[in-house]
This record gives sequence, C-alpha cells and structure tokens, in this order.
Amino acid sequence: MDYFSGHISTLIEQLSSLPGIGTKTAQRLAFHIISMPEDRVKKIADSMMTARSQVRYCRECCTLTDAELCPICGNRKRDHGTIMVVETPRDLSAYEKTGKYDGVYHVLHGAISPMLGIGPDDIRLKELMRRLSNEEIKEVIIATNSSLEGETTAMYISRLIKPTGIPVTRIASGVPVGGDLENIDEVTLLRALEGRTEL
Amino acid sequence: MDYFSGHISTLIEQLSSLPGIGTKTAQRLAFHIISMPEDRVKKIADSMMTARSQVRYCRECCTLTDAELCPICGNRKRDHGTIMVVETPRDLSAYEKTGKYDGVYHVLHGAISPMLGIGPDDIRLKELMRRLSNEEIKEVIIATNSSLEGETTAMYISRLIKPTGIPVTRIASGVPVGGDLENIDEVTLLRALEGRTEL
Repeated sequence: MDYFSGHISTLIEQLSSLPGIGTKTAQRLAFHIISMPEDRVKKIADSMMTARSQVRYCRECCTLTDAELCPICGNRKRDHGTIMVVETPRDLSAYEKTGKYDGVYHVLHGAISPMLGIGPDDIRLKELMRRLSNEEIKEVIIATNSSLEGETTAMYISRLIKPTGIPVTRIASGVPVGGDLENIDEVTLLRALEGRTEL
Repeated sequence: MDYFSGHISTLIEQLSSLPGIGTKTAQRLAFHIISMPEDRVKKIADSMMTARSQVRYCRECCTLTDAELCPICGNRKRDHGTIMVVETPRDLSAYEKTGKYDGVYHVLHGAISPMLGIGPDDIRLKELMRRLSNEEIKEVIIATNSSLEGETTAMYISRLIKPTGIPVTRIASGVPVGGDLENIDEVTLLRALEGRTEL
C-alpha cells in the first residue's frame, strides 16, 4: 500500500489487526479518523489506553471491571445466593438487559474446547469452586452457550458441583420467541421437543 | 449500560461513534482491546494520534499524505501531464492497485450534491483549476463515481475546463467484467448499450 503515506498505512494496518475489521473497513475508518477533530481522536485513543490499563477482573465473579468488586457483586440488593455462570462479560450484559435477573454472575472467560485445546484449567473454574465453598449458595444456573463447547462446559461444571449438594440448573434450549418454525434448524427443533412442558 | 464499569462503557461509547461500528461490534472490539497486550493497544492508539496530527493534504493533488508532496506527485517518473480526478483517496488507491495508470491524480474530497447542500466550493475544485492554469496538462480524466453526485460533478468540471481547451475525458460506464447480464440493473445495461464500441 505504498500509495498511501506512512502514517496512513500504519493506521490502516493497526486497525485491520482488530477482529472483524478487514482492509476495506480499516481504510474507511482510517480516513474517517484523519478527518475528525483532533480532540475527538484523542478521546478515542485515551479511552483505549485507560480501559486497557485500568480494567481488571472482579475479585468475586471475574467479570471485567474498574474496581476490586464489580457493580453487581458490590450491590447488596442482589441475591448473592444465586450464581449464573456465563462464558463472557457480553453474555452477562445480555442477561442484565432483561432486567429480570437479580442474582449474581460468574464469568468463565471461555468454554472448554478439546478442539481448540482449552481445558478446565484455562477458564475461571477454580474461582467458581472457591466461591461455592466459601459462600452460602442456593443455586448455580449454567448459562453457557448452546454450542458444543458450551454444552461440554455445562456438563463438566455440573459434575464438579454435584458432590457439594448445591442445586445446579441449565437455562432452557428451544425455539426462540417469535421464531418461525420453518426457519429453525433441526437440532433446535428436537431440543425444543425434548424440553416440552405441560400446559 | 451501567452493568459495565465506567472505563469499559466509555470505550464502547467512543468506538461506536465511528462510522459502521454498531454497539455490538463496539462491545466485541472493546473486550478484545482490554484483553490485548498493553503495548499493542498503545500502538493502535498512537497510530491514530500520529495519523491525525501528521497527515495533511498534498500541495499538488490534495490527497492525504505525510509530506508536503504525496509519493505520486513527487515521483518524476509519472506522467504529470495527465490528471485523473477522483472523489476520495480510496478511489485513488483503487486505481493505483491496477498498476496500469501512470499519470497523476486530483482528489476532490467529495462530490457536488445539491441534495446534501455540497456545492462546487465545498470540494477541491479551485485547486484543480489552479493546477490546470499553471502546468502543462495534456488531458483531464474524470473518474468520479458513477452515481448521481459523481455524474453531476463530472458534468460540472467538464464545463468548467472546456474554455481552457484541455481535453477532458470520462471513464467508461457499463457492464463490469465478469458480470452476468441478468443480474445487472437496467440503468447500467442502457449505459453499456449507449457506450458500445465497434469491434
């Protein structure tokens, strides 16, 4: 790309190293950034650096946060006896958006995947087990993804927790609300059938 | 988004202010940035700041560049008597990728659009006319987009240049190479018919 000058090429290269940003998007972003007011660019750059250096894992639930405890673990109004186990902070935020869950979370930062060489020690499982032995826990809800990795992780965790006697549940899998049956894959359809409940 | 901590929310907000980056992409990017090595984050942030502060318009062709003259205008091997007029630096790069054009460029940074209130004075037209009066120019090739705005701009420029006696040409519009006739819109088909050449 020697028809772009050094600084532009460098910026395009750096941006396209981010996930989901191809060369064309990186070019578009780069030219946009160059035409932006300087203080707006500084704000974006600063927010990257600050987030990277200031954000850490919550002491309790391992989500990413500014302080030692995340706002959810620090909230005494939440039900600290119910832990929902999720794969990523984005999954946590998806459930928070519902506004209906008032328990706390545990973020694994991944899922067990023999294919990718990710074992139980590569995710935040030890931290979960430590919480279960220290605190008064009424229920652990496993909300890992409904993928092969997510299911494997769910099975693994439930077996790990069984001996403690704490009830372990798994979020339901089935036809999404508003979903058109004809557009839904067979595995989901079968899962919905297996999980049918009496009316 | 108060379930994300301050620094993460700020980063997500800043990233989603960029064009084509929605909240979901911004979240994905933010969590990726937080998990990256600190020096990689610094590199991206620095490249933004440097590009914004160091990049300027080429004295000759108005493309974005590091120095007073862009590498193309500064290259004595190029044919400085042929100027291709394009809307954006990205269009310039598209033609450079062909590797077959050895003239120079002029970047307008936009196109005339009465709809958007962009007039001839809002794009780099004066700079083009100044070049035409100073230099020995053999031909001006108008390579603005084949859109309403691009065509309007092409017409406007050609009328402006006519009195100078410099030949003005327009890149051909028609069926793209490898294009299936049945999938091409009628306007393009008619344009291709009008522009037919003898075999």
